[in-house]
Amino acid sequence: MTFELRSAEVIAVGSELLGSTRLDTNSLFISRTLASLGILLKAKAVVGDDRALLRDLFALAITRSDLVVVTGGLGPTDDDLTREAVTDALGIPMSEDEAITAGIRNRFARRGMVMPALNRKQAMVPEGATALNNPNGSAPGLFIIAGEKIALLLPGPPRELQPMLNALCQPDGLLGARAGLARLHSVSIFTTGLSESHVEELTQPLYARWRDAPEPIETTVLATPGQVELHLTLRSGDAVGAKATLDDARGELVKALGLFAFSTDGRQLPHVVGELLQARGLTLAAAESCTGGLLMARMTDVAGSSGYVRGGVVAYSNELKVQLLGVDQAAIETHGAVSEPTAAAMADGVHDRTQADVCVAITGIAGPSGGTDAKPVGTVVIATRVTGHPLSVRTHVFPGGRDMVRFQATQTAIEGVRRILLAASAARP
Amino acid sequence: MTFELRSAEVIAVGSELLGSTRLDTNSLFISRTLASLGILLKAKAVVGDDRALLRDLFALAITRSDLVVVTGGLGPTDDDLTREAVTDALGIPMSEDEAITAGIRNRFARRGMVMPALNRKQAMVPEGATALNNPNGSAPGLFIIAGEKIALLLPGPPRELQPMLNALCQPDGLLGARAGLARLHSVSIFTTGLSESHVEELTQPLYARWRDAPEPIETTVLATPGQVELHLTLRSGDAVGAKATLDDARGELVKALGLFAFSTDGRQLPHVVGELLQARGLTLAAAESCTGGLLMARMTDVAGSSGYVRGGVVAYSNELKVQLLGVDQAAIETHGAVSEPTAAAMADGVHDRTQADVCVAITGIAGPSGGTDAKPVGTVVIATRVTGHPLSVRTHVFPGGRDMVRFQATQTAIEGVRRILLAASAARP
Repeated sequence: MTFELRSAEVIAVGSELLGSTRLDTNSLFISRTLASLGILLKAKAVVGDDRALLRDLFALAITRSDLVVVTGGLGPTDDDLTREAVTDALGIPMSEDEAITAGIRNRFARRGMVMPALNRKQAMVPEGATALNNPNGSAPGLFIIAGEKIALLLPGPPRELQPMLNALCQPDGLLGARAGLARLHSVSIFTTGLSESHVEELTQPLYARWRDAPEPIETTVLATPGQVELHLTLRSGDAVGAKATLDDARGELVKALGLFAFSTDGRQLPHVVGELLQARGLTLAAAESCTGGLLMARMTDVAGSSGYVRGGVVAYSNELKVQLLGVDQAAIETHGAVSEPTAAAMADGVHDRTQADVCVAITGIAGPSGGTDAKPVGTVVIATRVTGHPLSVRTHVFPGGRDMVRFQATQTAIEGVRRILLAASAARP
Repeated sequence: MTFELRSAEVIAVGSELLGSTRLDTNSLFISRTLASLGILLKAKAVVGDDRALLRDLFALAITRSDLVVVTGGLGPTDDDLTREAVTDALGIPMSEDEAITAGIRNRFARRGMVMPALNRKQAMVPEGATALNNPNGSAPGLFIIAGEKIALLLPGPPRELQPMLNALCQPDGLLGARAGLARLHSVSIFTTGLSESHVEELTQPLYARWRDAPEPIETTVLATPGQVELHLTLRSGDAVGAKATLDDARGELVKALGLFAFSTDGRQLPHVVGELLQARGLTLAAAESCTGGLLMARMTDVAGSSGYVRGGVVAYSNELKVQLLGVDQAAIETHGAVSEPTAAAMADGVHDRTQADVCVAITGIAGPSGGTDAKPVGTVVIATRVTGHPLSVRTHVFPGGRDMVRFQATQTAIEGVRRILLAASAARP
């Protein structure tokens, strides 16, 4: 091993990444992959197809960090300028690598095509650089070792970049062989039913202590509507010790969060509840109004969900609540489509028709219109009928726009199923 | 007007944005908003809570670009360092603004709380800076005019940042008043049913011409599974002329793309088809198996969809295909659950039960398991039954993983409805 890589920066190249429609998502993969080697991302940047600006950004990044990964701009066209900008910055010349040209020519030949002259550009290699084979595309990657720094140039498409970076991170790869003993270890806890500040209130006294430990645990709190996540990270050279430390920390946090913590292994709520259903041999059906199928779509997004999801009914119109679910028309007229009696009748109706063990009904006002003073936009009634348990019916008022209301309604309904199933296990002798 | 803003850079501050779970999405909004003023984003960066690094990045950005927007790091805690780093770079001192302190103290008082001493930090204002009121949070923004450059510091949460930036872009606002005459104008075309290379083949000869015009039109092609988008952008000081040029260009492209172009105003496919249904006074119902409710969830994601979506059935299990849709058990056994006869029976069944004018049925193998040689993962049968039209039943094989197969199945089914409705109008005298 020649030197140790501790810090990195990523520069994504491409004018399309500076518009209002597309984000550089490669950096998420790169961040995670480098973290597994204990290499910390210090900064990342996006730059258009601008040779001088890329040269300047690269030149500064390579002085600050041990590794600079540049993604994109390796194609054959005029606006692909990554090679040129990086060699400008490092002050090294380029020449054509005949073996690469031959390889690209072969790729075209296999498709019965002649390589356009333009593609020779992709075979230009900086002096002292090593080309990296790209099994999924025509643009080869390359790396340059300059002193105790590494410049790594990778193609932009994720399906080309990812296997190339993974190969470099193997123990004998360019990056794997230069990783230090210290690695980043991490665990996460997902919660639902608590606000971000509630989660902080319950957990901050715990993680504040760990911040000052000799090997500190860093805690990040991420909040989305319907879910708050805690991510713990520890940099350590002792994998066994780090795992034990993080397991302990996670244990303390889960204890503080109680039932609000639903996942400690990255699985999302529909997956967690799906496995509970599967383990208990129970089936699920739903009757959805305002969520229009979103609850069932989320539950069946999980591979293997056909083992426990039977299906159900989307009764968006009142007629279908009567025709498909047998809800009493008079009850809808008396109490309204968004009411606890209607939700209960929807749950009963879908149970009668599917015989599923767990039946969930959702009816509400997702907005933007349809709200009243008594039942504002965001009002959602959820009824849950689990065989052997009393029917649960609750009215909620969710904040936010249409999307947020619909998502929170499904999240709350799925969480409601989890709570009933867990209470059922707790009640067992 | 003192000077004109033409270029900008964005720096997002926060260590959480360097991990593997979260992207800086503010930059998309900022890019779009500045583009509407003709201010072009040259680069963007993300940096952790690192005062020296932020200072260096900011110092370089402000030499290259007219406007530097720094987002985040304006909170009250120790790791909020944006004010300090920017004033370090500009070499100006800070002092407490008593009016801001009073404002923050009031916010706490209204909630019956005493302002923590920590929050005084948020009232520190650089000399010569102007504070910006933040109606949705405690961190005020601020701007500094330095020569013919502007440093703009905004809080990170989108619901705080967006109204503040919008206000600054009004004609009399900080940025609006300094925008040049040239603005960025843009239009988009969404297509489905064609691959990215097909779209390029049909359109590239057209847009290649426009690239060399005195006021060139820039074209970006964005491909996602089930949808390829063309975005055209033109920088011009002549709003009327630009609109005419872009309208012409869009017209030529739509002609080349034919029926594959479904939207020229940013509306997504469920919205476009929803409006077709609404305009014709038709109702929609669905019977979904492998998509598990995703088609109905997407259709009802559109505000106002209760005007035409009646609902339908999710028959994920074979039993429910029989019980809820009246599909013949023997037919499922003979032909399989994923077969054209079963799909047709599902469409008929949902029509019998809902009397909707347009009935769609989807049955398929989303994977990862369940595929066979004859019916590999990705096989999806779609049946569409529109009153007054012959039943349409087609078998597709979609590439990709579970998510992609499910999404493409719904996209293809919705597009199928659009094609039938358009053919119906074309057939009218």
